[in-house]
Amino acid sequence: MRKSIATVSLSGALDEKLTAAAHAGFDGVEIFENDLVNSPLAPQDIRRHAADLGLTIELYQPFRDFEALPEARFTANLRRAERKFALMRQLGASTLLVCSNVDPDTIADDALAAQHLLTLAERAAQHGITLAYEALAWGRHVDDYEHSWRIVKTADHPHLGICLDSFHILSRSTDPAGIRAIPAQKIAFLQLADAPLLSMDILQWSRHHRCFPGQGGFDLTSFLEHVVAAGYRGPLSLEVFNDTFRRSDAAPTAIDAMRSLLYLEEALRRRLDTAVGTTGHGQTPAPDRDRIDLFTPPAPGALQGLAFVELAVGDAEAQVLAALLDALGFRRTGRHRTKQVELWRHGVIHLVVNREEPPQDGPSLRAVGLRTKDPRAAANRAEAYLAPLLPNQRGTHEANLPSVRVPGGTTLIFCPTDDAWLGDFTSPAENETSPDTDVRSSALTGIDHLALPVSFDEFDDALLFLRAVLGLHPEQSLELADPYGLVRSRALTAGEIRIALNLPPGGRGAARPQHLAFACRDIFAAARAARLNGAPIQPIPDNYYDDLLARYDLDEELLARLREHAVLYDRDRQGQFLHFYTELIGPHLFFEVVQRIDGYADYGAANSPTRMAAQHPARVSS
Amino acid sequence: MRKSIATVSLSGALDEKLTAAAHAGFDGVEIFENDLVNSPLAPQDIRRHAADLGLTIELYQPFRDFEALPEARFTANLRRAERKFALMRQLGASTLLVCSNVDPDTIADDALAAQHLLTLAERAAQHGITLAYEALAWGRHVDDYEHSWRIVKTADHPHLGICLDSFHILSRSTDPAGIRAIPAQKIAFLQLADAPLLSMDILQWSRHHRCFPGQGGFDLTSFLEHVVAAGYRGPLSLEVFNDTFRRSDAAPTAIDAMRSLLYLEEALRRRLDTAVGTTGHGQTPAPDRDRIDLFTPPAPGALQGLAFVELAVGDAEAQVLAALLDALGFRRTGRHRTKQVELWRHGVIHLVVNREEPPQDGPSLRAVGLRTKDPRAAANRAEAYLAPLLPNQRGTHEANLPSVRVPGGTTLIFCPTDDAWLGDFTSPAENETSPDTDVRSSALTGIDHLALPVSFDEFDDALLFLRAVLGLHPEQSLELADPYGLVRSRALTAGEIRIALNLPPGGRGAARPQHLAFACRDIFAAARAARLNGAPIQPIPDNYYDDLLARYDLDEELLARLREHAVLYDRDRQGQFLHFYTELIGPHLFFEVVQRIDGYADYGAANSPTRMAAQHPARVSS
Repeated sequence: MRKSIATVSLSGALDEKLTAAAHAGFDGVEIFENDLVNSPLAPQDIRRHAADLGLTIELYQPFRDFEALPEARFTANLRRAERKFALMRQLGASTLLVCSNVDPDTIADDALAAQHLLTLAERAAQHGITLAYEALAWGRHVDDYEHSWRIVKTADHPHLGICLDSFHILSRSTDPAGIRAIPAQKIAFLQLADAPLLSMDILQWSRHHRCFPGQGGFDLTSFLEHVVAAGYRGPLSLEVFNDTFRRSDAAPTAIDAMRSLLYLEEALRRRLDTAVGTTGHGQTPAPDRDRIDLFTPPAPGALQGLAFVELAVGDAEAQVLAALLDALGFRRTGRHRTKQVELWRHGVIHLVVNREEPPQDGPSLRAVGLRTKDPRAAANRAEAYLAPLLPNQRGTHEANLPSVRVPGGTTLIFCPTDDAWLGDFTSPAENETSPDTDVRSSALTGIDHLALPVSFDEFDDALLFLRAVLGLHPEQSLELADPYGLVRSRALTAGEIRIALNLPPGGRGAARPQHLAFACRDIFAAARAARLNGAPIQPIPDNYYDDLLARYDLDEELLARLREHAVLYDRDRQGQFLHFYTELIGPHLFFEVVQRIDGYADYGAANSPTRMAAQHPARVSS
Repeated sequence: MRKSIATVSLSGALDEKLTAAAHAGFDGVEIFENDLVNSPLAPQDIRRHAADLGLTIELYQPFRDFEALPEARFTANLRRAERKFALMRQLGASTLLVCSNVDPDTIADDALAAQHLLTLAERAAQHGITLAYEALAWGRHVDDYEHSWRIVKTADHPHLGICLDSFHILSRSTDPAGIRAIPAQKIAFLQLADAPLLSMDILQWSRHHRCFPGQGGFDLTSFLEHVVAAGYRGPLSLEVFNDTFRRSDAAPTAIDAMRSLLYLEEALRRRLDTAVGTTGHGQTPAPDRDRIDLFTPPAPGALQGLAFVELAVGDAEAQVLAALLDALGFRRTGRHRTKQVELWRHGVIHLVVNREEPPQDGPSLRAVGLRTKDPRAAANRAEAYLAPLLPNQRGTHEANLPSVRVPGGTTLIFCPTDDAWLGDFTSPAENETSPDTDVRSSALTGIDHLALPVSFDEFDDALLFLRAVLGLHPEQSLELADPYGLVRSRALTAGEIRIALNLPPGGRGAARPQHLAFACRDIFAAARAARLNGAPIQPIPDNYYDDLLARYDLDEELLARLREHAVLYDRDRQGQFLHFYTELIGPHLFFEVVQRIDGYADYGAANSPTRMAAQHPARVSS
């Protein structure tokens, strides 16, 4: 379907916005009045600039507080409208968004509203302009689409339709299924926005927290299905008021915006695929997906876990990291043929330790190898989702693995299931004698999860990226109290893969916390082995264990073992979770070892504040 | 009254929090459980540390989800309570906060709740502990203080009282006047928090947006009056969950916290002063203020306008600034006797241009001279409000003017009304011949307002500082759309003084916008003069004037004059506002000239987006 974006969704001067939208592949734009008013470009110049960029001006907006006011104001409003019609002709825009009236003087009289809109539509028609009447969620009297539709139906003019905006409808939990009954030619425009599910004043929610589809909590797939079932084939237009987008570069925001529409189209296509042969909602048949132009990227190949995780480390911490990995039971099993890169292994877990381009702020998680049956298809999907493949930096005989970068900086590398990439490393026999790598492999059984740092402004982008490109599913968003601020954390999962995005609080405690958690079957055996082998285990305060005893009716013997091994404890409805941490290596990175019992499905978030407090340098006054 | 703060209101490890609270002059603290659980210090060590710092541990909190649950859980909860009582004895805390139950299984049975709390109080009494039962605004059944009081009254035990928390009461708009009827000995504790008036989920509002008294919108003076009228003489304790405070240094936050309680006490004292001889609310007499220990700082001397504004400028922009001031009709009338500082004058307006310590990021507003009858009293008041006087850097024969620094960096200088500080400058005759300074003085008639940049984390602190130290009154908070993000702006006023705090959006457009606005009686004369004299006036797009015509039914001739002179236009209910801007000098600073007609009381905020868009470097693509 055609794709459009309102200029208010992007930052900068109007011409910057247009350029960013065009470069991201949009077909058209909605011109937001303030962007035009504050532009040094005349309307004709804007029209020309858009045309040069291949952009249609789909809509001009907003025209406010028009209908159902007393007569004198109606006359003044018609005068105001005529000026806007003249401007729209210069601009080459043929649809005007008319918002339902919010003025306290608005008269609660649908017939009057219809009559006023009819008069306006007759005048608009003379300029070749169509009105799209939108029920604002906070309209004085008209605040849902069924109401605006009744008024439009009463007015009954070919140049008057309704504008459907997903935010205004879903924010009030209005059932969107009724849209299916509206004739397609009466849906003059469609605006899409997602939003996190907040309970707050709708106007403030709308002005600050809208986001792109796939970044929030609305069911936009169902919403769009209803609109498409009604027969609407006009543009999908994003209208997103968002504080972060306002201050971010327009170019990457426009890319995210386009990715969000592609993601929504793919979701709709899958929905329609499964609905084939059934009738939707008992009212209208499901739309025939073959007759709608919906984005169809390569399917996300089933990810079969992590091939490896790559740690970047400078010379200063390389020895410490090596000692720690060794103490956790890893063995150095290979060296890269051409780079300062080592391969470490423990049972099925591979870690790559990269000393090229040492990280500026301490050891960090730089890349994740994802095992997939068809790396090329995975890469094609990423490209279709506007994620450029990173330049290949491999030597002639090395595995050519496609890779992309997640907003926030981590690289994703698509690896074949045959682990052919291991051929880039010399075998142990070629470089050093190493004990049997499987001697202690019983301790750690895999990678349980990893947590990556993301900045505030990248958080929603990274979330959408991982959903769209990898097909991961987001879990609940959490807030964790670090002594120096709240950390926001959200995990995304698919099968064996669990990746959490962590947003540090900024300010003086601005660590970029990141960690890698290994799974095990016996936490106490793993903790004992790690300690005996000299791993620095993060000490946990005694007070924590006293509190555990108050909170849970724990067996004294278990409590003593937890305390002895600095193992933390959590429960959910299913099972139990036991875990310990290593001390920090550098300012940000640490490892965790976890044991999940009876299908425990979370991450021990209740214990994160204890861990974060313990990780801060001791400041005990004497 | 005694002053206390909950450790959750401050950042860092527990011992840091205690130290910060003690240094700010608090008498005691509430220990928040998580701070203790995550501390490496044993409870006895915390007790000793607090005692060494002169702090009482006023309360331990929170004890959650206790009352009115089925029998088996009641038994488990008693066991949990016994562990907390034991801990409190080690800690030396004698009051436990018991929050009303939020568990979905809570039974709606006040008699059962009272019976459970009675049992708990009997056990607590054995440890010398008193329970303070608090109605959380989101409690399952008990969610207001009248309800919690009924239950406490029914239970009727000397070791059981209620905890009053201003947020839980005022966030739900519960009338606090009923507090006056509660016997003082049944008010076991008082927690104070302010908050901005938001319409959102109360739990989220409480967890993220609480702030210190004087930073938000609650009427805490009336609230405290009711509590004091009830006879409560225990500590005023701040319990503030705030994302910014969590990530800010504990020491300055603790100072702000103490300032907020002093400010609240002063407000209550004034209230009681005016209430003397009357009875409050027809229920209980107003409390006798002489019998309550309330903060009494020197009165804020009536400020008589601005003596001067000091601009800091480096050598690079000094010439440009001089040319601009000259074009605006200012004359250089003096040089400082010992420093690279010049005095400029236009009629009654004095500007000081300081070239010592050039600013790092371009010309800026560095200091404001406030004219007051008693600079010493003003300084004493500032010191009483914990604002340290800045070191005096004057030479021997120079005026010794006390000064303080507003959070955000601007210096306030208290100047006597005799303008004796002018003696620090050589007269024009001593250094250069200057035309009569009053020749063009008719153009600008004074300083209308000034706007200072403040960072996000300083905003509320600066607001409270200006309220407390200068006695300014905050106006409405505004959001202004810059092309590169939203700017938050809030003006504070008293008489002739209008100071706006501007919070830039951060991100790539991270300007620190600041400006000085001059008043005039004829905007077109002022604009013409400025232009003729070569002042670079900020151009305003034609589209703005076309839109003005659509919005207001303006006289064509007036519109033409506005357009010709790049003058902007606004209206409020009273009158009209005409204003123009100079172009930026350096990255942040500009001047404005304004004319207020018929008592217009705002700042032309509707035009700010146009000005901000115009100030960004032109990015018009060809």
